[in-house]
Amino acid sequence: MIIVLKPEATQAEIDHVVSKIESAGLKAHISRGVERTVIGAIGDETALREIPLEIVPGVDRVLPIMTPFKLVSREFRKENSVIDVRGVPVGGRKITIIAGPCAVENRGMLLETARKVKAAGATLLRGGAFKPRTSPYSFQGLEEEGLRYLAEAREETGLPIVTEIMDPRDIELLDRYADVIQVGARNMQNFRLLKEVGALNKPIMLKRGLSATIKDLLLSAEYIVSNGNPNVILCERGIRTFETFTRNTIDIAAVPSMKDLSHLPVIVDPSHAAGRWDFIHSISMASLAAGADGLMIEVHPDPENALCDGPQSLMPERFSRLMDDLKKMALFLDREI
Amino acid sequence: MIIVLKPEATQAEIDHVVSKIESAGLKAHISRGVERTVIGAIGDETALREIPLEIVPGVDRVLPIMTPFKLVSREFRKENSVIDVRGVPVGGRKITIIAGPCAVENRGMLLETARKVKAAGATLLRGGAFKPRTSPYSFQGLEEEGLRYLAEAREETGLPIVTEIMDPRDIELLDRYADVIQVGARNMQNFRLLKEVGALNKPIMLKRGLSATIKDLLLSAEYIVSNGNPNVILCERGIRTFETFTRNTIDIAAVPSMKDLSHLPVIVDPSHAAGRWDFIHSISMASLAAGADGLMIEVHPDPENALCDGPQSLMPERFSRLMDDLKKMALFLDREI
Amino acid sequence: MIIVLKPEATQAEIDHVVSKIESAGLKAHISRGVERTVIGAIGDETALREIPLEIVPGVDRVLPIMTPFKLVSREFRKENSVIDVRGVPVGGRKITIIAGPCAVENRGMLLETARKVKAAGATLLRGGAFKPRTSPYSFQGLEEEGLRYLAEAREETGLPIVTEIMDPRDIELLDRYADVIQVGARNMQNFRLLKEVGALNKPIMLKRGLSATIKDLLLSAEYIVSNGNPNVILCERGIRTFETFTRNTIDIAAVPSMKDLSHLPVIVDPSHAAGRWDFIHSISMASLAAGADGLMIEVHPDPENALCDGPQSLMPERFSRLMDDLKKMALFLDREI
Amino acid sequence: MIIVLKPEATQAEIDHVVSKIESAGLKAHISRGVERTVIGAIGDETALREIPLEIVPGVDRVLPIMTPFKLVSREFRKENSVIDVRGVPVGGRKITIIAGPCAVENRGMLLETARKVKAAGATLLRGGAFKPRTSPYSFQGLEEEGLRYLAEAREETGLPIVTEIMDPRDIELLDRYADVIQVGARNMQNFRLLKEVGALNKPIMLKRGLSATIKDLLLSAEYIVSNGNPNVILCERGIRTFETFTRNTIDIAAVPSMKDLSHLPVIVDPSHAAGRWDFIHSISMASLAAGADGLMIEVHPDPENALCDGPQSLMPERFSRLMDDLKKMALFLDREI
Repeated sequence: MIIVLKPEATQAEIDHVVSKIESAGLKAHISRGVERTVIGAIGDETALREIPLEIVPGVDRVLPIMTPFKLVSREFRKENSVIDVRGVPVGGRKITIIAGPCAVENRGMLLETARKVKAAGATLLRGGAFKPRTSPYSFQGLEEEGLRYLAEAREETGLPIVTEIMDPRDIELLDRYADVIQVGARNMQNFRLLKEVGALNKPIMLKRGLSATIKDLLLSAEYIVSNGNPNVILCERGIRTFETFTRNTIDIAAVPSMKDLSHLPVIVDPSHAAGRWDFIHSISMASLAAGADGLMIEVHPDPENALCDGPQSLMPERFSRLMDDLKKMALFLDREI
Repeated sequence: MIIVLKPEATQAEIDHVVSKIESAGLKAHISRGVERTVIGAIGDETALREIPLEIVPGVDRVLPIMTPFKLVSREFRKENSVIDVRGVPVGGRKITIIAGPCAVENRGMLLETARKVKAAGATLLRGGAFKPRTSPYSFQGLEEEGLRYLAEAREETGLPIVTEIMDPRDIELLDRYADVIQVGARNMQNFRLLKEVGALNKPIMLKRGLSATIKDLLLSAEYIVSNGNPNVILCERGIRTFETFTRNTIDIAAVPSMKDLSHLPVIVDPSHAAGRWDFIHSISMASLAAGADGLMIEVHPDPENALCDGPQSLMPERFSRLMDDLKKMALFLDREI
Repeated sequence: MIIVLKPEATQAEIDHVVSKIESAGLKAHISRGVERTVIGAIGDETALREIPLEIVPGVDRVLPIMTPFKLVSREFRKENSVIDVRGVPVGGRKITIIAGPCAVENRGMLLETARKVKAAGATLLRGGAFKPRTSPYSFQGLEEEGLRYLAEAREETGLPIVTEIMDPRDIELLDRYADVIQVGARNMQNFRLLKEVGALNKPIMLKRGLSATIKDLLLSAEYIVSNGNPNVILCERGIRTFETFTRNTIDIAAVPSMKDLSHLPVIVDPSHAAGRWDFIHSISMASLAAGADGLMIEVHPDPENALCDGPQSLMPERFSRLMDDLKKMALFLDREI
Repeated sequence: MIIVLKPEATQAEIDHVVSKIESAGLKAHISRGVERTVIGAIGDETALREIPLEIVPGVDRVLPIMTPFKLVSREFRKENSVIDVRGVPVGGRKITIIAGPCAVENRGMLLETARKVKAAGATLLRGGAFKPRTSPYSFQGLEEEGLRYLAEAREETGLPIVTEIMDPRDIELLDRYADVIQVGARNMQNFRLLKEVGALNKPIMLKRGLSATIKDLLLSAEYIVSNGNPNVILCERGIRTFETFTRNTIDIAAVPSMKDLSHLPVIVDPSHAAGRWDFIHSISMASLAAGADGLMIEVHPDPENALCDGPQSLMPERFSRLMDDLKKMALFLDREI
């Protein structure tokens, strides 16, 4: 950590900063410049991170040197992590396609969708049983009934299932049914939830929050991994910006950024990013080209009557055509679906 | 709701849209313009809101007319709501000053801070027992022990207490200790939590999320009120923008905006907005001048050794001087503290 | 245009709004709903756009129906525009690769770079002679001397040249040397400049401003086209968001968005979007996959000693390897470079 | 400047970085930590700023110590600058109120407005003769005719005039008529224009760009001052964020931030920030309370028929009532209007 002093910092103030650094177990290294004195704190930076050096008299600014996350970092582990989801590897050479409806609305529509996305080549089935909705007057999910239909669909199609958790009280229930537990964008900083899914031995898909930086997302992943669960899949799903033509702004450079900073697999959710079905093809192709390890795509047999996210859902036939193109793209990139 | 059709929409498509509107119980009113046909849906818009009309063939765009919230809206209730917090009114002529440490660190520091903010004129005491922290390696709060110290401080000073909930499983515990339960920025869209605090008969302070629009915040407030709890206090605490000189960007115009859209009281948290203690004075004064009903300010007896938010905490003497200025400002504005 | 009235609007106020609409030459169409009255203005919306109906008594909100641009819109022209740049088509089946240094620093480096990007397969040469720099203490460009070197490089390599204009007084000079005149992100709303390049008969590359929505960009393009110059190439180069890991946030969905809204060609500048050379490969591949008509990439023979944008410049060998991949991608997408 | 090396940096790479630093005339100071080596560059940082050290092999990150601006910084000049505008001081104890129409539409409306804002107590008159408009189909200003009316209004009322420049070719013309030349938000990084107004001996009001950080604004001010013109007035007018309820998001903390970083006067434009007249009162009061040195407010005798910015313009009577409150607020803050 680098501590930049104010031009007018006194010797007593410098000594005080040095003693703070030393009492945290680090060594202080003083550089006196023409206009400023700068102190380097040498040793384990985490010990200093909790001390508000910014407000110690004489201090102008504090510049951390290390990233605040460790276990999820590329420095900690050079090779890409591959997460095993009931036998399906996520993060390796194979590209993962998660598909299914936004919400499980009833048994029939789920089974129909599951069969069709399986036929088209999807590798995991998604479907929400607990739904976070901005309006209290919107459909909120079938809860355990929805989970049962998902399990039935898995039995029939063989597709492992991905479903969202909204409440730590549902952990046991979800652990019983789900193959991947999704922590949604709105819960990315629900730290209690992160800790508890960190105590499971089950893959977690962590979606980026609407106002979360890439480093925030990795810190949230660190919560899970540092609690004992290394099976984290990162998901870019768009951030909130001033542009309103699309529902969110997909940050495609987050794919190489996360790959640079972390060893965890990265998938992209084009449906929530775009908010409209007609851009899903181009964003999906772009995501694979950018190096994503997979995609999560909303598919609904009758979007016009969907209870949730209809405008951004693909119909099965369109999804099937998209899959044809994605398979070719995967081969072109020397990967496969 | 207004449905704008595509220039090439056919009569069959128009008929289909009309039937959708009518089957939801509204009346359709067709205007044929030179370049476009526009259909107005007359009746209760909420019935239509869940139908994804955007993807119905022939539809170009859907423009809602009504705000998506109702009970919290100014249209629903013309007069300002005044929330009673153990005898302290929030939202009326009196300005509410909530002060105290970011986190309850130990008994001594809390009691000392409580006495000092009371002496300076604060009306409510804040202090976190459960702390949402971006890093898993940071201090996470004293939990129930912290709540007991808060209760003790209330006993001694008479100040009602405000403390944050992070997990629905703590609702009973918090309901037992707290006078105002705070739902933090990161939980503003934790909808299960919103519903459950909506079932309490206790004031809730709802903080704006970092990427939440004013309307998102009001929809979250609607979750609470529609579940039966009308005692909601809104809190502006800064949003995330590209500007990094301050921790967040305080949206001061959110004060008149929320007052325009809603009858609920609005307070401002200058500490989290600025992230640095030296701007708290100017932002606090500006907030009152903009029409805020109160402020929430972090005060710590020894910020340099604080376990949380040291850089943005005021020392008690400085808080006391700020209170002198705020009291004068309140009088100037024909209000009082 | 739809005018939503306040619930309490009086008949006199409604009549006044109707008279405003009619005096602008449109017809008013009144729908009385349960809670609100809504007035549709039927006819040429542009006539109403300049009238501030929002503040007419009784009016709550005004919802435009038409896009505010016309000549650049997809509705105006269904087929993609192809711009001819000295015989090189931009916007058709062929993908355009513009490459070269951020700034022309001297004759030697420009000619060397030009030869190398030509050899690698670039189709246009870029190089700044006038440089917009955030700091007054940075290198500001060689001006006409730089343009002469660009012309020499064109003569030698046959590559048409793209260079930026910063000042309307340089229009004649740039028109004499450049094959494409670039209007940079910071000048995207320099409306006088837009009008004057609109009077030329020369292709203009218009870069999206850092805080410009897609519709703002198209309105700026409309300035150029409505002044008589239909040869506009749109360029996505990243917007400013809260994410700071990359220099800007590339809005990859802007590619299908602009293609949906407009008939103009769209290219992407991965160099400014990322701000770091090591992400250029992935963003370039993603851009083509998303449907971009081309790329603009900064190449410098010695980035470590570049006077401008060194961190985001590729060395020629690396550019050459990127071109190999881009050519394969173009073929895969059934296009070519 | 601090250069953080990669964990795997070799001695040869360290030596190369040191030689780069020394060849720029600075001294290198090496600190070897447990995980990283860090090099401090001691001396004039500006010499290093143009060298892209980020891409030198072995370098991970570069952390500047000094602000990139100098002449406008508070470090350079401790006391507040007071700018003399034809005898009216801007930036001292007196608060400056600039009022008038968005655009000069005709002689009558300008003179009427000028008389009324003068009567209400405004200190400067604003009015645009050259108008930057997002749409090419909007009113673009009366140009020199407008300037003549402004001069006439000044003659009659004694109010110095503030008017915007859009094109460097108009500098002489504007210098002849204006008392303060305004550089608008869209031209904040029109660096040629900044240099040329920097060569004048006339106050310049520089408005913050919609996506400009506070430091970007100060760098643009540095352009003007370093070219010889120290008479710069900074203007906060709102930035672009995801919130759309107001036209822009006023960054009220920018007032204390700019005062902290710079000695230049800071005024606020509530009209453009809010985009609606009914929030101007609260934002104006808040701005003074936050420490602003003045306000710029749009006033129009008939907003309903304004050719520009009608929705955000105050009628003269309302402006007059606002002035009564602002005068009281100024006295309360121990300043005066």
